[in-house]
Amino acid sequence: MDYSAASLKLHEDFVGKLEIKSKVSVETRDDLSLAYTPGVAEPCKRIHAEPLDVYKYTSKGNLVAVVTDGTAVLGLGDIGPKAALPVMEGKAVLFKSFANVDAFPICIDSTDTDTIVETVKMIAPGFGGINLEDISAPRCFEIESRLKKELDIPVFHDDQHGTAVVVCAALINALKIVGKQLKEIKVVVNGAGAAGTSIVQMLLNLGIENIMVCDREGILVRKENYTNSAKAELAAITNQQLLSGKLTDAMKDSDVFIGVSAANVVSEEMVASMASDAIVFAMANPVPEIMPDLAEKAGARVIGTGRSDFPNQINNVLAFPGIFRGALDVRASDINEAMKVAAVYAIAEIVGSKDLKETYVIPDAFDLRVGQQVAKAVAQAAVESGISRI
Amino acid sequence: MDYSAASLKLHEDFVGKLEIKSKVSVETRDDLSLAYTPGVAEPCKRIHAEPLDVYKYTSKGNLVAVVTDGTAVLGLGDIGPKAALPVMEGKAVLFKSFANVDAFPICIDSTDTDTIVETVKMIAPGFGGINLEDISAPRCFEIESRLKKELDIPVFHDDQHGTAVVVCAALINALKIVGKQLKEIKVVVNGAGAAGTSIVQMLLNLGIENIMVCDREGILVRKENYTNSAKAELAAITNQQLLSGKLTDAMKDSDVFIGVSAANVVSEEMVASMASDAIVFAMANPVPEIMPDLAEKAGARVIGTGRSDFPNQINNVLAFPGIFRGALDVRASDINEAMKVAAVYAIAEIVGSKDLKETYVIPDAFDLRVGQQVAKAVAQAAVESGISRI
Repeated sequence: MDYSAASLKLHEDFVGKLEIKSKVSVETRDDLSLAYTPGVAEPCKRIHAEPLDVYKYTSKGNLVAVVTDGTAVLGLGDIGPKAALPVMEGKAVLFKSFANVDAFPICIDSTDTDTIVETVKMIAPGFGGINLEDISAPRCFEIESRLKKELDIPVFHDDQHGTAVVVCAALINALKIVGKQLKEIKVVVNGAGAAGTSIVQMLLNLGIENIMVCDREGILVRKENYTNSAKAELAAITNQQLLSGKLTDAMKDSDVFIGVSAANVVSEEMVASMASDAIVFAMANPVPEIMPDLAEKAGARVIGTGRSDFPNQINNVLAFPGIFRGALDVRASDINEAMKVAAVYAIAEIVGSKDLKETYVIPDAFDLRVGQQVAKAVAQAAVESGISRI
Repeated sequence: MDYSAASLKLHEDFVGKLEIKSKVSVETRDDLSLAYTPGVAEPCKRIHAEPLDVYKYTSKGNLVAVVTDGTAVLGLGDIGPKAALPVMEGKAVLFKSFANVDAFPICIDSTDTDTIVETVKMIAPGFGGINLEDISAPRCFEIESRLKKELDIPVFHDDQHGTAVVVCAALINALKIVGKQLKEIKVVVNGAGAAGTSIVQMLLNLGIENIMVCDREGILVRKENYTNSAKAELAAITNQQLLSGKLTDAMKDSDVFIGVSAANVVSEEMVASMASDAIVFAMANPVPEIMPDLAEKAGARVIGTGRSDFPNQINNVLAFPGIFRGALDVRASDINEAMKVAAVYAIAEIVGSKDLKETYVIPDAFDLRVGQQVAKAVAQAAVESGISRI
């Protein structure tokens, strides 16, 4: 199917993918007096007296802003806020379709970190959560961490954490198949951007100790001087043995390869050099780091990609709708590490032990159980963390 | 009917009045590939190459931001951005119900003029128009004028211009009944805030020459030193005879009273002192400057209020939905004076000469012809002004 032409036609036919719908009808004077003045004064007064009542009388509690500056859109790069709109609308469509979350695109006309932070803070009163999207590294890290500190609603950079949650869910199930323990495996992450950084943090949260991160220059090692502070931090928390070298060196005898990098950067020889029963998640889009058939030929046992036309699609849509659904359901003030880890295990558990196999370590994108189970687990984790407000 | 209790229940039952709806369904992998990646890259690329294509492939062209800082909400005053949300959602409901315009509330967490201007500029890429709402004077004037200059989409402060358009439409029809000409009448406007200021400007645009404006201190006169620059400007363009005095003095021998002020500030004696066949639009809400029965007893011939339970309701809903519909339909870059005047005459003309009478100078809020006729006239005025982009 030629998705480009068909998608263009779809967007032109519908003139965009979103519509603002009124839940109430206004057909009589009484309708008008209830939805608007004079009746509307009453919920306004209640919220003025008790700010948390905004969740009771307005749409805020189910509303997520999908915020971008258009600097890192899909594989297209820095195309700006207007050209990013179709993607942000698409994200909103997924929020609605997969978890009944109302999501609205906010495309910011600046790439300045302070400006983006201030703009999001200024419009936050109307939203129940903020989903940051397609903002380039390293600015995305500071933007997210400042907004998390300064806002009392969940802030979540999906390119980082959504990817990390799904990768980790797939990894947990893959390890069951190969019979290895989290504590004993050696993991190589190729790509030190937004996704790579969050994946590393989540691998550490899961208890994995031996992690190496590579960027285009090779293995990150703390003795180097990195001008990019995000890379310096990654180097500081990984590669305990202070190994230097290229991706080829890192992959030797490793148990797991996680690629969030670029097409075809991994060869058959590199996969063959890994430990037995290797796990290869090659998620570069649309062309993976190594094609699944080549990885399999080279000896990998569990293989995943970002694509829907191969088994084990590592797809963010398994994570973000349910994570926000759960956070919104309990009016959580944050999406914290415990909630993300809860999402990891909820996704992993959907694949029952009877069904688990090399080509099925992660649920299908359209498995309707996923959003519900993730939401339930995330909401419970929020309550247990003491950050729910119901 | 107790609107307060019923409205509270409505807001609680629906948990807010708005929902973000997806126009496209996502039930299969192909759906996902068209609405989102990889297909969505194509409309993004087109917009990146030709920015005006954002109107073709996204929801921007039918989307209006309803922007407030919550400083002048209904009769409630400065209740802040969260407590203002029910009103802004209500406004969005009216946009949708009366003109199929998608409108979305943006409640800004600051009352600083520069911050509000910057925030709206930053989020503008995703919107086809900006409706400013319930922002207190005099900041609303600067905010609107700066945004109009700096943005390439229509910016419209409804509290000012929506009210002015509907008042002027009612006035034009009322003058037909009393048989007076625009150029010969004396008009008193009581209230020098957002609405009063815009009404005066539109009266001048219509060709009315003899206008006096009163605030709580009395008649505005240019020889006074006003610290409020908006009042100084109003004084400079009105009251050619440099009369001083109170509202009582201004109203003597006047043909038209337009009140956008406070309850019960006009007495029967004051109305009785007006010229014969006086026109009284007493629009303070919920209690008018003078109740219609008293105004009639005192000799007023045409009487209008802001209320739906009396004849001649001067209701903004007659103006803003059709004005934005017309502006959006031709992708206008602004809502200019010509477009507002076109809206005035379109609304006035809905009341045919056969039906015109003292108690029917303005169409009913639910007259479905209004939005369409206004949109048509406004779109045509935009095209004739050379600011359409289709």
